[in-house]
Amino acid sequence: MRNQIKTLVNSRNWEIGIIGIIVLNAITLGLETSPSMVAQFGEILTFSGRFILAIFVIEIALRLYAHGLEFLKDPWGIFDFSIVAIAMMPASGAFAVLRSLRILRVLRLISVVPSLRRVIGGLVSALPGMASIVVLMALVFYVFGVMATKLFGAAFPEWFGDLGRSLYTLFQIMTLESWSMGIVRPVMQEFPHAWMFFIPFILCTAFTVLNLFIGIIVSAMQEENDTEADVNRQSIQSDTSEILEEIRALRAELNASNYREKSASR
Amino acid sequence: MRNQIKTLVNSRNWEIGIIGIIVLNAITLGLETSPSMVAQFGEILTFSGRFILAIFVIEIALRLYAHGLEFLKDPWGIFDFSIVAIAMMPASGAFAVLRSLRILRVLRLISVVPSLRRVIGGLVSALPGMASIVVLMALVFYVFGVMATKLFGAAFPEWFGDLGRSLYTLFQIMTLESWSMGIVRPVMQEFPHAWMFFIPFILCTAFTVLNLFIGIIVSAMQEENDTEADVNRQSIQSDTSEILEEIRALRAELNASNYREKSASR
Amino acid sequence: MRNQIKTLVNSRNWEIGIIGIIVLNAITLGLETSPSMVAQFGEILTFSGRFILAIFVIEIALRLYAHGLEFLKDPWGIFDFSIVAIAMMPASGAFAVLRSLRILRVLRLISVVPSLRRVIGGLVSALPGMASIVVLMALVFYVFGVMATKLFGAAFPEWFGDLGRSLYTLFQIMTLESWSMGIVRPVMQEFPHAWMFFIPFILCTAFTVLNLFIGIIVSAMQEENDTEADVNRQSIQSDTSEILEEIRALRAELNASNYREKSASR
Amino acid sequence: MRNQIKTLVNSRNWEIGIIGIIVLNAITLGLETSPSMVAQFGEILTFSGRFILAIFVIEIALRLYAHGLEFLKDPWGIFDFSIVAIAMMPASGAFAVLRSLRILRVLRLISVVPSLRRVIGGLVSALPGMASIVVLMALVFYVFGVMATKLFGAAFPEWFGDLGRSLYTLFQIMTLESWSMGIVRPVMQEFPHAWMFFIPFILCTAFTVLNLFIGIIVSAMQEENDTEADVNRQSIQSDTSEILEEIRALRAELNASNYREKSASR
Repeated sequence: MRNQIKTLVNSRNWEIGIIGIIVLNAITLGLETSPSMVAQFGEILTFSGRFILAIFVIEIALRLYAHGLEFLKDPWGIFDFSIVAIAMMPASGAFAVLRSLRILRVLRLISVVPSLRRVIGGLVSALPGMASIVVLMALVFYVFGVMATKLFGAAFPEWFGDLGRSLYTLFQIMTLESWSMGIVRPVMQEFPHAWMFFIPFILCTAFTVLNLFIGIIVSAMQEENDTEADVNRQSIQSDTSEILEEIRALRAELNASNYREKSASR
Repeated sequence: MRNQIKTLVNSRNWEIGIIGIIVLNAITLGLETSPSMVAQFGEILTFSGRFILAIFVIEIALRLYAHGLEFLKDPWGIFDFSIVAIAMMPASGAFAVLRSLRILRVLRLISVVPSLRRVIGGLVSALPGMASIVVLMALVFYVFGVMATKLFGAAFPEWFGDLGRSLYTLFQIMTLESWSMGIVRPVMQEFPHAWMFFIPFILCTAFTVLNLFIGIIVSAMQEENDTEADVNRQSIQSDTSEILEEIRALRAELNASNYREKSASR
Repeated sequence: MRNQIKTLVNSRNWEIGIIGIIVLNAITLGLETSPSMVAQFGEILTFSGRFILAIFVIEIALRLYAHGLEFLKDPWGIFDFSIVAIAMMPASGAFAVLRSLRILRVLRLISVVPSLRRVIGGLVSALPGMASIVVLMALVFYVFGVMATKLFGAAFPEWFGDLGRSLYTLFQIMTLESWSMGIVRPVMQEFPHAWMFFIPFILCTAFTVLNLFIGIIVSAMQEENDTEADVNRQSIQSDTSEILEEIRALRAELNASNYREKSASR
Repeated sequence: MRNQIKTLVNSRNWEIGIIGIIVLNAITLGLETSPSMVAQFGEILTFSGRFILAIFVIEIALRLYAHGLEFLKDPWGIFDFSIVAIAMMPASGAFAVLRSLRILRVLRLISVVPSLRRVIGGLVSALPGMASIVVLMALVFYVFGVMATKLFGAAFPEWFGDLGRSLYTLFQIMTLESWSMGIVRPVMQEFPHAWMFFIPFILCTAFTVLNLFIGIIVSAMQEENDTEADVNRQSIQSDTSEILEEIRALRAELNASNYREKSASR
């Protein structure tokens, strides 16, 4: 029974069925954003939404039954499980915002379609190598954020009023959005030397982002090169061993002939 | 007859002639944007436009006759055909916008000049490898678009009123244009936690674009390396085979001398 | 005594202790930005700030004693020393801005955590190779800055009033922030040909930044390749030496057998 | 006499002297932007400017005499010559703008300092490989420029009034500066489908710039790899030739010993 379900939930047809249901769900959730559609087909949309959710719950339940606890060791299993769990949560009162999270179900496409899964896997596997630079970036943001709050917080409360606002404003400056006309020029009206704070910040973050970027490129390249270099090395080694075999055969023959000669001359 | 036309439309002189006519057409279409020029030379411009179009139609007809249906299997053939077809369409009333599409004829330069053709070919050949990331990007846009419409649509109808507007606004935010001062800060006046929606969106799209970018660089590099590694491998293999030949010659000589000795000693 | 202190300040536990104190200091300095926190825990924060500074001073003193003058030859030593020195400076009157520099102490994390140290080391080691491009960039900025001041200074004193303002505005234009709508379109109202100044500037700086960027990528890549190529070469050389040994052994045997034969035939 | 001058103008001391004079000129031209400096030292600045120009003219004259017409075949010679020629032109009346071009003399640093010369040489040598993409970009701009003028010229004369304005606005949109809030949203008030024009334009130019960028990176990398691969190949070839020599020595010895045996056995 368990094995039959396992075969079922891992089968190609099941996968295609689930992809179809996810795409259908994506369309119905998209239609729900249009008031005229909701007015016309509201009941159908609500019903189909519940129906599709039921299918998702049954699918997760089957997979949980089939794979047992191992299902929750697989990161993609946790991903699927939590997306369905969010959709099951009550979405009324203070949690009304959760209703809009139902669209996250569409992200299940990533865990179902293998090529998308591989892309995300590639992105995630690049993260650990970036840890140091992310910590460095956090440090730069924290240091500049505290300084900005202290220096400009009193005069520009909307931008630098507390640490949170300062960090948001610094993020905006890092993306270079309206950094000068919108933020730094007004600040410089009050603090003429403010550019000595903001231009180093821009250069620091630009340099850090550049390094993050180069790190990812180089590691992606290196992986490519490694596999290629391996192929190369193997081809060279097979050449080498061929030569060595020939030489050893030659030595063996020589020794044999010498031995024959010696025994002959005895 | 057919072969003669084939030789003609594939000849270097024909190509140069077509390039000349395209450049001439580019100039006359450019001049048409200037009211003073139109007032002065309006009739000449209209006439030359029709004359050049006639030449293009004749050229396409000749190539269709020369190559037969194979012409429409070549993507560049379809490209040339559809550009001329657009120019032939009636451009009055609701289709007035089609008149401005006549300038697309200048794009025929791409299909005629070999080096431009190669550049576009390179770009297009890089696309299939990017399919997964483009699908992923579309998914990210759709999910965030539906959420933005639900969350902010009522309060900011101009930016997030329906799915189309949300997608446009999210595209603007992805390009980082006025994302904070123009969009997110006003939204945060009403929804103070809106940054928890927009900053993850910016990071997601930046990361996806970065990966698209790295994918293209790595595949371009890999291609370069592959050809080079091939050259390298061949040079090593020719070295190896030279060594092997020498050793085999040595073995042959040794065997021959042994044989002579043996026959001599008998 | 000196060696004991040396062992102590280089020990793993000491390092972890210092990291803990820096993180604690980061938190207290962060809390100081919140007026409500200062109102409630002001005295504790002030006291802990002094206490932590005292620990830093003692730590630097111990390291100075342990390593002697060599401590000040190590760039990280100078880095730690100057950060603590800044924190010791009187922060009243005209130097009130120095109070906000106390947060720089958090940067000591960089000199203490080895992986951060390596990242910064990597960034700094990439700088000398970039010297020419930085000089070039400075030259471009200086030339365009002087020209902008002369050409537009009288008409737009706020943007191009003196060399400093021009350089700041050009930096803004280089980052592409509001360059057209904010700066160049207004300037073009007065000087219709101003685009002939600004568009070349944008292209020049974009091209220079691109080259800076490519220089860093290529040098990072080259380093990777170098180590890999070394590994490759060593593997090939060990193959080669194995072959050579075999051949030499063969020659030696041959000579020995010839010698025996010769002596036998005598 | 001619050779003596040639030795002089190519000597290290002469070079350092010229660099000093250029830097001095850069400073005096920088000081001239400050009205208070001009008021105080105006005469000294004017005099030193003329004096330095005289030195430059003499230097160019000496180099012209020393190298003859070959001086004008060297691109750097033409560069130096035209910069000094610009400085000699009358700068009054309609040519007042030429006065501000005097600062271009500072660019002579590039032709004098070898490392700067190499950087610029590298940039320029990368250009020919980019020709196709630059032509493609020009084509894209021309096509979209003509279309924008036709479609939006009447309604938005300031942005798309004639071909020149359209090209400038499209350049601004390519740099993503205020493209949406500043240009496309206002245009969409009138033409709701304008995004179908501008978003493809942004994607086209982004893709073309990306390809320009990748082309430059790949060619820079390839150059690096080529030199390295050469070194690698040489090291492998020297290994191979060592092995071959050993084997040939072996064959020679074997033949010699066989010959001796044969002659002995006769």
